[in-house]
Amino acid sequence: MSKKQINTKVLSGFVELLPEQQFIFDCIKSRVELSYAKAGYVAIDTPVIEKSEVLFAKAGGDTEKQVYRFTKGDNDLSLRFDLTVPFARYVSEHYNDLVFPFKRYHIAKVYRGERAQKGRYREFYQADIDIVSEDSLSVMYDVDIISTLAKTIENLSNLCSLGNFKMKISNRKIWDGFFEEFSISGEQKASIMNIIDKKAKITAEVFDTELSERVKNPNVEKLIKELFELEFIPNVGVSIPEKYHSDFAFINDNEKMKQGIRELEVVMKSLETISKDRFVIDLSIVRGLDYYTGTVFETFLENYPEFGSVSSGGRYENLCDNYTDKKICGVGGSIGLSRLFIPLIESGAISENNISKSMIDVLVLPQGENCYFRAFEIKNKILNETIYKTSIIYENKKFKKLMEYANKVGAKYVVIIGEDEVANNTVSVKNMITGEQQTVSINDALEIIKEKV
Amino acid sequence: MSKKQINTKVLSGFVELLPEQQFIFDCIKSRVELSYAKAGYVAIDTPVIEKSEVLFAKAGGDTEKQVYRFTKGDNDLSLRFDLTVPFARYVSEHYNDLVFPFKRYHIAKVYRGERAQKGRYREFYQADIDIVSEDSLSVMYDVDIISTLAKTIENLSNLCSLGNFKMKISNRKIWDGFFEEFSISGEQKASIMNIIDKKAKITAEVFDTELSERVKNPNVEKLIKELFELEFIPNVGVSIPEKYHSDFAFINDNEKMKQGIRELEVVMKSLETISKDRFVIDLSIVRGLDYYTGTVFETFLENYPEFGSVSSGGRYENLCDNYTDKKICGVGGSIGLSRLFIPLIESGAISENNISKSMIDVLVLPQGENCYFRAFEIKNKILNETIYKTSIIYENKKFKKLMEYANKVGAKYVVIIGEDEVANNTVSVKNMITGEQQTVSINDALEIIKEKV
Repeated sequence: MSKKQINTKVLSGFVELLPEQQFIFDCIKSRVELSYAKAGYVAIDTPVIEKSEVLFAKAGGDTEKQVYRFTKGDNDLSLRFDLTVPFARYVSEHYNDLVFPFKRYHIAKVYRGERAQKGRYREFYQADIDIVSEDSLSVMYDVDIISTLAKTIENLSNLCSLGNFKMKISNRKIWDGFFEEFSISGEQKASIMNIIDKKAKITAEVFDTELSERVKNPNVEKLIKELFELEFIPNVGVSIPEKYHSDFAFINDNEKMKQGIRELEVVMKSLETISKDRFVIDLSIVRGLDYYTGTVFETFLENYPEFGSVSSGGRYENLCDNYTDKKICGVGGSIGLSRLFIPLIESGAISENNISKSMIDVLVLPQGENCYFRAFEIKNKILNETIYKTSIIYENKKFKKLMEYANKVGAKYVVIIGEDEVANNTVSVKNMITGEQQTVSINDALEIIKEKV
Repeated sequence: MSKKQINTKVLSGFVELLPEQQFIFDCIKSRVELSYAKAGYVAIDTPVIEKSEVLFAKAGGDTEKQVYRFTKGDNDLSLRFDLTVPFARYVSEHYNDLVFPFKRYHIAKVYRGERAQKGRYREFYQADIDIVSEDSLSVMYDVDIISTLAKTIENLSNLCSLGNFKMKISNRKIWDGFFEEFSISGEQKASIMNIIDKKAKITAEVFDTELSERVKNPNVEKLIKELFELEFIPNVGVSIPEKYHSDFAFINDNEKMKQGIRELEVVMKSLETISKDRFVIDLSIVRGLDYYTGTVFETFLENYPEFGSVSSGGRYENLCDNYTDKKICGVGGSIGLSRLFIPLIESGAISENNISKSMIDVLVLPQGENCYFRAFEIKNKILNETIYKTSIIYENKKFKKLMEYANKVGAKYVVIIGEDEVANNTVSVKNMITGEQQTVSINDALEIIKEKV
């Protein structure tokens, strides 16, 4: 039949959850929101549609190909592909009305029309935090971003039983200073950084071969490998192991490396007060080539290595240089909500059992039309006098069918109003977990429900 | 300079709030969300982008012209212009996985590229609730929708001091049965309904003239005017005033009118238990011509008549008939969040004073770099051991500048960590409302803050 010819599936690469799944995703999303807000970040909301000239002021190549771009009237428009470019525009536009340092969060959907593949969505939620200011920003703000993300992921881990996670931290100034020392720049530097970035994903042998092919200098190659052993020792600081000290004597005259190490030390020393083993130095974290200028970090779930980094970010300069002459520097990070949680929810790895909340706490069930009005009054009483999510259904169905409905919507308690209950001004309360049922006054019913939900 | 040539203003018809304004809007939005969820509605989230054939299965004319439509690869795509069509697609697609009656809410942005004018946005939030089922649905669900919206608007009114509001209720079956009685149909019926819909917005004289021109039958005209006096009398029911009883004797044989009046009576009788004067019968509420088939309602704020109806909805049949042969009927309603609240927030009619929440509760202020580390530890203690939104800024600025910042972000308390405080293991707590400042231990500071925030 013709009406069936309209395919009601969502577009390929898009995702749509069933209500039970959506409930879990929304619990996770609002936990992130609460965690960000509690740490002093404030929300902004920008249009999904931006002028193309705004979005493409900087981007190019692959990004531009992926964007949903179209015209409406005379306007060349695009859907945002991340939350950073709109943030840069927002800060430039509202510069005079913002108070710096400006700590903002933005949890919203972004759009990338990339080839559909497992774990990649064309519409997905990002959850970003950033701190930006004019001219300069203490390295303690790097700590603020990392500790806020750590606390947020810890909250999520508790909520969803995700297990332990580690945050790997580095500082781009250390590599930048190092390569300057040996006059390595341009394409060669990019190619070496590229293999450093891949270190954790390839074998030691492949890494060694690739590194030596790209560095073409056995001494530098040796120093790079030694630099990976840079360590943080509580009460001492961040340093290269003593056995390599003579190899790195040149650092004393390399301001950029020294500053990178100093910054990393402040970050590690601060984070160590939060957890002794969550935060580790890993110089293979470099996060792309151009954008970041100092601290960089990535986050890995021990039980889910297949997701790669679930939260990353770092320090950057000149956020707004496409839009304003003001120098706005900042530090930020992001949690890829959809990419991490949608597969876990769809596979059942995270279920309603993990979330200590229910879609419906109390379901009121009138048995037959004669009980509807009384049931409506009882429902309002529960709704208005308790904190519980309270629903009611008016169905002329057999008791068994009504109980099936209650089970399907996950009600913790049902309040049954039959003709006897109406006549006697009572209600029957059934605990859906224990199966226990009592016929009592409405006030006693409220007490029973309050005790248990 | 060339970088200044990129205009960072949002597109015409789009809206973007400053952080303080966004905070208020988000408080309102989450109050709506909580109210819907508490009343047993569950959230869904659908893609912003839909296939054009899905969106345009029913729509046409003006709607189609307003839509943001574009192609990506081989796909003809559009941004959703409401939340109802995506809901119909969702129900059709997930029919086998949903439990009916299905009570859902959806609070999200929709897109209409209409001519930009005051109070009209091209991207705006709708907050919809609907209850749908197969085949049939008790009129008590109409009560569920109206009472949930009433409670939600009451919550918003308390939050934002909006003042009193009235919900005007009618039932389309009454008019449908009436016009059938007098063999008025097609264009003539549409034209009469159209002037009935405008009754509240025009003078009695204009209404009378227009009505008589369209009805062309003095008796029917008289009956229409009498029908507007249909009233609800508690403990009696919904009826036409006694003086007109003989004029309406025909109702006894008009099943549709009788059913409409019966439904309206159930609705009014139920709503009367919630409020004696909030809900009124008003037969001039007709809500468009085709979609609704029973109960219809609109909501008016007494202090803000200029907004017109701020929440409307009604009963409909065959929600999904473009996508499936299943008969899905339902009842629903919506609050136009952006249309109502953005002007009130932008004009300052709703400010942070109306919202009993603050963006930042406690701001920790280290005075100089030597105090950063200690301040970081104190901030974490407050953050982890209280429910308060706690921020910190690391700025080497004069005390006065720091206090200015605290005022601008709306902090209720500041916790000052200077060199004396570090040396003595104390903190100074300043109440930003009273100006009172005390130097105490961190634990005492926590007690002071807990008492007051």
